Amino acid sequence: MTMIDLNSDLGESFGPWPMGDDDAMLALVTSANIACGFHAGDPAGILRSLRSAAERGVIVGAHIGYRDLVGFGRRNMEPSDAELFADSIYQIGALQGLAKAAGTRVAYVKPHGALYNTMAHDARQAAAVIAAIKALDPALPLMALSNAPVVAQARAQGITVICETFADRAYMADGSLVSRSRPDAVIHDPKEIAGRMLRLLREGLITAVDGTDIRLEAQSICVHGDTPAAVAIARRLRADLTEAGIKLASFIR
Amino acid sequence: MTMIDLNSDLGESFGPWPMGDDDAMLALVTSANIACGFHAGDPAGILRSLRSAAERGVIVGAHIGYRDLVGFGRRNMEPSDAELFADSIYQIGALQGLAKAAGTRVAYVKPHGALYNTMAHDARQAAAVIAAIKALDPALPLMALSNAPVVAQARAQGITVICETFADRAYMADGSLVSRSRPDAVIHDPKEIAGRMLRLLREGLITAVDGTDIRLEAQSICVHGDTPAAVAIARRLRADLTEAGIKLASFIR
Amino acid sequence: MTMIDLNSDLGESFGPWPMGDDDAMLALVTSANIACGFHAGDPAGILRSLRSAAERGVIVGAHIGYRDLVGFGRRNMEPSDAELFADSIYQIGALQGLAKAAGTRVAYVKPHGALYNTMAHDARQAAAVIAAIKALDPALPLMALSNAPVVAQARAQGITVICETFADRAYMADGSLVSRSRPDAVIHDPKEIAGRMLRLLREGLITAVDGTDIRLEAQSICVHGDTPAAVAIARRLRADLTEAGIKLASFIR
Amino acid sequence: MTMIDLNSDLGESFGPWPMGDDDAMLALVTSANIACGFHAGDPAGILRSLRSAAERGVIVGAHIGYRDLVGFGRRNMEPSDAELFADSIYQIGALQGLAKAAGTRVAYVKPHGALYNTMAHDARQAAAVIAAIKALDPALPLMALSNAPVVAQARAQGITVICETFADRAYMADGSLVSRSRPDAVIHDPKEIAGRMLRLLREGLITAVDGTDIRLEAQSICVHGDTPAAVAIARRLRADLTEAGIKLASFIR
Repeated sequence: MTMIDLNSDLGESFGPWPMGDDDAMLALVTSANIACGFHAGDPAGILRSLRSAAERGVIVGAHIGYRDLVGFGRRNMEPSDAELFADSIYQIGALQGLAKAAGTRVAYVKPHGALYNTMAHDARQAAAVIAAIKALDPALPLMALSNAPVVAQARAQGITVICETFADRAYMADGSLVSRSRPDAVIHDPKEIAGRMLRLLREGLITAVDGTDIRLEAQSICVHGDTPAAVAIARRLRADLTEAGIKLASFIR
Repeated sequence: MTMIDLNSDLGESFGPWPMGDDDAMLALVTSANIACGFHAGDPAGILRSLRSAAERGVIVGAHIGYRDLVGFGRRNMEPSDAELFADSIYQIGALQGLAKAAGTRVAYVKPHGALYNTMAHDARQAAAVIAAIKALDPALPLMALSNAPVVAQARAQGITVICETFADRAYMADGSLVSRSRPDAVIHDPKEIAGRMLRLLREGLITAVDGTDIRLEAQSICVHGDTPAAVAIARRLRADLTEAGIKLASFIR
Repeated sequence: MTMIDLNSDLGESFGPWPMGDDDAMLALVTSANIACGFHAGDPAGILRSLRSAAERGVIVGAHIGYRDLVGFGRRNMEPSDAELFADSIYQIGALQGLAKAAGTRVAYVKPHGALYNTMAHDARQAAAVIAAIKALDPALPLMALSNAPVVAQARAQGITVICETFADRAYMADGSLVSRSRPDAVIHDPKEIAGRMLRLLREGLITAVDGTDIRLEAQSICVHGDTPAAVAIARRLRADLTEAGIKLASFIR
Repeated sequence: MTMIDLNSDLGESFGPWPMGDDDAMLALVTSANIACGFHAGDPAGILRSLRSAAERGVIVGAHIGYRDLVGFGRRNMEPSDAELFADSIYQIGALQGLAKAAGTRVAYVKPHGALYNTMAHDARQAAAVIAAIKALDPALPLMALSNAPVVAQARAQGITVICETFADRAYMADGSLVSRSRPDAVIHDPKEIAGRMLRLLREGLITAVDGTDIRLEAQSICVHGDTPAAVAIARRLRADLTEAGIKLASFIR
C-alpha cells in the first residue's frame, strides 16, 4: 500500500502576533515543522504548538532558519560555516528541550525559507547544516527538496534524507521549483493539485511547466496553512489521497 | 578532606564583542556557567566556550537569563509563568545541544543576573524555573544563593540544589547579599577574600557587615573573571585554598 | 461647539506578522499612535502606516515603548534613567525621520503598554520620558492618562499634556483604570460605551465601578482596532458623537 | 592649503559590551561615524558617543548598517528596496534625534560594513539608500568609496558625495580594495601608511598592489580605532600630515 507523509510549517507565531491556523493543520498533516525562534516562534508559543502536535500524535521536526526575525528567514544570508553550524545546533537543541517538556521528540530537521533554498544547491551551507545534524544526532533525518544536490550530499554523509515535493508549486524541467517571481510559480486549483500529487505517488512523475514529465523522489508532500485557501487545498488533498487508497502516515516508523 | 567547587560566568561574548577572559578562568574554576543566548552569548561563541571547557575537563552549567540582551539580563522583568517556563527550557535545551557537539553535557542550571536575584526570594518566578528543570531533567541540579528561600523551595520539589557563596561580596546579617548600591557591597582585597572563604569552608561561618557571624551552606564559590583584578582574586583564592589542603573539585561526582 | 480627538494604536505589524486593521481605523480616528520599533513595528511597515495616515489627513504620534518585542511592551521593566531617556529619543527620532519621508510629522508622544501604565504614577520613569521630549522638542505634547500624577508632573515641566480617556475601560473611584485582572475591567456594549463618552464630553463626568461619579479631564478618547468588535465599537462611538453634534478633530490646531 | 578629513567608526559598543576607544579617536579624527543601533550601538551608548563628539567639536555622521547585530553588519544581506529605504531612514532619524539631544546634528551618512561594500557597486541597494537620504534631507552628504560606481550614481541624483580612502588598505589597479581574504589586504606599517596618504593628498595617486599608480579622489581618510595598534597608526598619520602642512578639518564648512 502506498504511504505518504504530509508536512506543514507550524509554530510560526511570535509573541502577540499569531500566524497560521495550527489546530486546523494538525488535523490534516502527519508531520509538523516547528519554528525554532530564529525566523519565527517564541518559546512559549513553540511549546503550545508542540503540545498540540503531541496530543494529536503528529510527528514534529525542527524548522531551523536564518537569524532574521523581521525578514522571516526569507532573505538570503551568508553566515560563516561556524555560525551556521552552531546556529543550527542551537535551534535544534532548543526545540529538543521544548519537545521533551511537551512529551514528544524532534524527529527530523527541515530548514526554512532562504536557508532551505540556498542549501538545496549551495554545498557550503549544506555542509554546515549536515555537520550540525551529525554532531547532534546522526540518526536525525533531513527533509530536503526532491532531486536537489543537497539530497546526495547528505546521503553521502550518512544522513537519512526525506525528499519532499511542494503540492502547490510548479516545477522546471530540471526538477527545480519555478521561481516565485514568475506568474506560474504557484498552482491554485485544489483539484489540479490533488491530481498532480496522485500521479506523482502512483507513477513517480510530475509535469513540468514546459510540458515534459519529470521523475521526482517523494517521501513527503508539503502543504501550507497560512490562509483559509491553503487549508482548503490541504483538506482536499488529504481527502483525495485517502479516497485513492493512499495511506497518510509519517515517514517515522 | 574538604572539597569545594569554584564557578564563574563564561561564554558571555556576543558576536564581535568579547567579554571576560574565558581561557584564564577555565584554568582556575571547576565549573563554568555558560551563557545561553538570552542575556549574552551567540551560538558560535557559546560553542567555543563549551569546547574550551570540555578540553580542560571543566564542568558546564546552563546560565539562563531574561530575554534582555542590551540590559545583559540585569534588569528586573516580570515574564509570565508560561514565558519563564518555556524560556528556561529553550535556553537549557539549546545549551544541551551545543554541549553535545562540544563533547560535554549540561551538568547544572544557574540563573543569571536579575533572574538569579529575583528567584532567590520570588516564589512565583522560582517555581517556573524549577518546573522547567523538572520537565527537562529532574536530575539537573540548580545552583542558587546560599540560605535564600529558593533553596528550600527547589529541594521540596525534589531538585538538587548547589548552594553558592560569592567570594567578593559582603553579606547582611540575614544571609542576603549587601546591595550593590552600598559602597561596602564588594570586597576588593584578595587576601581578605581568601581568608573569608577559608573560614567559611572550615567553620561554616562568614562575618556579616554588622560584625555578626552567620552560617552559610556552601557547595560552590562564585568568582568573577571580567577584569584582570577579578582574575587575580580568583587565582589567589585558588592558591590559598589549595595550600590550606582544600581540594577544588566540581560538585558533580 | 464641543470637539474631541479619537486616537488609536497603529503600525503594530512586525515583518510578516500583521496586526490590526490600520485602514479601517484611519477612517475613524483623528490621531494615530504609531509604533516605533521597540515593542512593535518594523521600519517598512511603520512607513506604510505613516503614509496611509498622511493620505487621510490623520495626525500621527510616536507610540514609544519598552525594548521588549516578544512581550509587546506589556511587561514591566525598569530601565535606568539614561536608558529610558535615550530609548525614548531614539524611537521618536526614528519616527520623525519616517514621518518626514511620508510627508507628515510627529505631532505628539504617547507611551505604550507597560511604559504608559508605569509612567502614569512612577515619577522616575515619567521624568526620563519628559526629559526626552524636552531634549528633542519641548513643544511636542505628551498624551497621558487623565487624572494620573504624570499629568501634573509633565505640565510642571512645561510640556503640553493631552489627557485621554479609554472608551471601553471601567474606572475606579480615584480615576484610575480598573485592573485588567478584574472581570469588570472592560465594557463591551457599544451603546453603553458611546453613552459614557457622551456624558463625559457634556458633563465632564464618568461613573466609576462603585457607582460614584468622577470628574475626568479628556482631550482625547482612545479606541482599539485589534478585533472586528473593537472596530465596530469605534465606528458606533464616532457615529453617536457626530450625531450629538460633537466635532471629531485632532487636538492639533 | 591642502585640507583633509579624518574619519573613524565610533559608538560601536552595545549594552555591557564596549568596543573601541572612542575618547582616544575623538582626539584624532575630524569626523565620527556613529553606529545607529542596527549593526551596533544602543541608544544610551550612542548618546554618550554623540556627547563626547559634540564636546570636542567633532562632526558626526550616521553609520547605518544592515539589521544584523550578531554579525555586526558584516554579512551580506539582500533587503528589499522598501526595507532598505525604510531601515536607512529609521536609523538616520534615530541618530538625528539623539544628536539633537547631544547638542549636535547628523552632518552626513556613511553606510557600514557589508552595506557599504555592496552599495559601492550594487546599483539597486545604492538606489535605496540614496532615495532614503533624498527623502529625509537631500543636503545630507553620502560618504562612499573613492572611484566606486556609487559615487557617480549618488551625484547624478544630486547628492553630495564625500570620497574616502582607507589609510591601511591596499588597492587593486582598478581602484577597488584588495579583498580581506588576501594576505596583502592590510598595510600595517604606520610610516608606510602615512607616506601613502601624503602622496595621495599631494599627487592624487596611490600605488596599487600590482605596482601601478592609480588616481583616487579623496575628501576623507578612514582610520580605525579598534585596537591599540590602530590608534597608533591614526596618531602617526595625523602627526605626519600636520607636519607636512596639511590641515585636518571636516569636509563640512
